[in-house]
Amino acid sequence: VQRVFTQLSVSLDGYLAGPGDGPGNPLGDGGEQLHEWVVELASWRAGHGMSGGRTGPSDDLVAEWIARAGATVMGRRMFDAGEAPWGEEPPFRHPVFVVTHRARDPLARRGGTTFTFVTEGVERALELARAAAGDRDVAVAGGADVVQQLLAAGLLDELEIALVPVLLGGGVRLLDRPELSGVRLALDRAIDAPGVTHLRYVRRAR
Amino acid sequence: VQRVFTQLSVSLDGYLAGPGDGPGNPLGDGGEQLHEWVVELASWRAGHGMSGGRTGPSDDLVAEWIARAGATVMGRRMFDAGEAPWGEEPPFRHPVFVVTHRARDPLARRGGTTFTFVTEGVERALELARAAAGDRDVAVAGGADVVQQLLAAGLLDELEIALVPVLLGGGVRLLDRPELSGVRLALDRAIDAPGVTHLRYVRRAR
Repeated sequence: VQRVFTQLSVSLDGYLAGPGDGPGNPLGDGGEQLHEWVVELASWRAGHGMSGGRTGPSDDLVAEWIARAGATVMGRRMFDAGEAPWGEEPPFRHPVFVVTHRARDPLARRGGTTFTFVTEGVERALELARAAAGDRDVAVAGGADVVQQLLAAGLLDELEIALVPVLLGGGVRLLDRPELSGVRLALDRAIDAPGVTHLRYVRRAR
Repeated sequence: VQRVFTQLSVSLDGYLAGPGDGPGNPLGDGGEQLHEWVVELASWRAGHGMSGGRTGPSDDLVAEWIARAGATVMGRRMFDAGEAPWGEEPPFRHPVFVVTHRARDPLARRGGTTFTFVTEGVERALELARAAAGDRDVAVAGGADVVQQLLAAGLLDELEIALVPVLLGGGVRLLDRPELSGVRLALDRAIDAPGVTHLRYVRRAR
């Protein structure tokens, strides 16, 4: 059965990005600490066209996420922040659906990544991603708005948090919506790895 | 070496209590879900003068916290909420130091619990608790204000979070202070138990 999953690095105080995030500072002050655990991994480096890197439990997880995703949904701010650094051959290598208010022609990149801009909302973007993913799963890349909308609508099957033991003191919170009240999850898997704890939650009935 | 530790039940979205908390509703709306895992445990029941209850990894942890604490520090709102329900024989059975702006005579209860009201701030309350605890450790019972002040001051050695897989959508956050920015911790122990994941973090140099 096709699953909709998200995997996000979060500080212990609940932030996806630090204070002062915006164009030119997409991770906010201190936010790069949330990704220290991932950028040295062999699987992450391979996805970005680099060789070498560390192996271990986090590397196994990243490889698993890459392998299972047949399409990705993301918000417009994430796309805007990534467009330049991802360059001509972005690491997705599958169809990506960007939730936005601004219509734009699809963008085909090398290596199998296509960006389709969806102006009919997050649920429509998910529908398109489900169809595009075929028998693989759908990854939700973020940001917080997209994840929270899907979670509140009961459309997110798995929420995997990479909990990083640092406090950012402010920024963009992953979970801060009143409409999330009453969402119940169940811990499905906990993996302790260097510099990060991976906690996978699955959806339960309210 | 004497350690200062805190153990708090927190929702996955980071709340110690749900929305609408206040006198008469100390846990806020839905906040009782954060404590479902604890109130059935044998060790918790024994501390409250009841027999029976569940055993297992959470029960072992609660027994450990009770055994190691020689004194407790808590905020005034927690005391106010607890004073009536704790009754004539509160579960602490050791000296408790309440951080408050209102001077009040000490209160001695049955079973070894004494409440001392400290108007000189949280660091003074901790100093008194350290002396009172002797060769045992000091527990910080909460609330969020007290924990965050000690964490920011580098005076909390261990932060143990009982992460409950429910979203409250609002309420009192455990960690929401700008002055916490840059605090780095390290995961010391992760224990997955029914309905809760226990994550113990220890302080690292900034």
